[in-house]
Amino acid sequence: MARRRLSPAQRRDQLLDIGAALFAARPYEDVLMEDVADQAGVTRGLMYHYFPNKRDFYAAIFQRASDRLLASTGLDDDRPLEEQLTTAIEAHIQYFVDNPRDAMTVNRGALAGDPAIQAIIAAELSTVGARILDKLGLEGHAREIAAIAVHGWLVFGRAVCVEWMQSQTISRAELTELCLRAFASVIDLDAHNVGA
Amino acid sequence: MARRRLSPAQRRDQLLDIGAALFAARPYEDVLMEDVADQAGVTRGLMYHYFPNKRDFYAAIFQRASDRLLASTGLDDDRPLEEQLTTAIEAHIQYFVDNPRDAMTVNRGALAGDPAIQAIIAAELSTVGARILDKLGLEGHAREIAAIAVHGWLVFGRAVCVEWMQSQTISRAELTELCLRAFASVIDLDAHNVGA
Repeated sequence: MARRRLSPAQRRDQLLDIGAALFAARPYEDVLMEDVADQAGVTRGLMYHYFPNKRDFYAAIFQRASDRLLASTGLDDDRPLEEQLTTAIEAHIQYFVDNPRDAMTVNRGALAGDPAIQAIIAAELSTVGARILDKLGLEGHAREIAAIAVHGWLVFGRAVCVEWMQSQTISRAELTELCLRAFASVIDLDAHNVGA
Repeated sequence: MARRRLSPAQRRDQLLDIGAALFAARPYEDVLMEDVADQAGVTRGLMYHYFPNKRDFYAAIFQRASDRLLASTGLDDDRPLEEQLTTAIEAHIQYFVDNPRDAMTVNRGALAGDPAIQAIIAAELSTVGARILDKLGLEGHAREIAAIAVHGWLVFGRAVCVEWMQSQTISRAELTELCLRAFASVIDLDAHNVGA
């Protein structure tokens, strides 16, 4: 295969694309850095120049997916908060559906508890939490209570999605409904329905 | 110090007691296996015979604390579920208050993501979850929904307790109330108030 001329950023993106497809198709353990290099038509040395090891490579793929998910689920429009939350929850569930191996790899598989992955998840939850808090427009002690409640709710949401991915005993609609009901209970949604 | 004659089980308990006190008093990094051996009046060799390394030693202390917490928070009496849950939630919060370093060590510190610790936490959540599900007396699909909801709620409870330990911005009563409100929303509490 002829090696195409790509800028470093393009090359990095290409490697991430190839890796994402491979990690989606096979268990983490079965993806080899060498396979990625071969598919990209680059030397193994160049592959390792971009990503020192498979763990870092996976983390970079996971980071990019997180960035994209965050970019696609902003709470910045004028619809009522509940509607926007529903859209965001559905987008997150769709992410789990589209990336079933991710959920296992980072939560119960090879990279469960991995500090780099945990940091990406924590940053994602923190970003989404800040968006929700801003949208609620709370101040003072009400904001302090909401900050803990929203954090707990986001962790709840991740946990039920992971559980759902494994058990598949309840429907997607029931899962969405469960998340919304939990949110409404920990935050007094009616009182803060900005834009409603 | 004279070495007392103890059975292996007594010796193990003694070492765990000394370790628990040291880990409560100092950061994880500052507790040395040698200090524990010295305080127990045993050789380092014997210490390492019981616990191959500090991580295993800490996990054994953590496991014992989890066992005790589970033993003290059964849901087996005739009071309404909400009352029993309140008692259990308060006992768990008390555990966090009594063991503030634990919360940091296992969630955001030296052992965050450690597989042995994660397994103990997962087993604890699973035991508590099964108790709640049994108490609810649900069957069929209602039980499947509740299983995911209860799992998510338990993870929620842990997350808000850890957050509360770090921020201390809300009161203990508000924290308990938040957990109860979340539970009532994800489970239809009134409909299943066994023993009420």
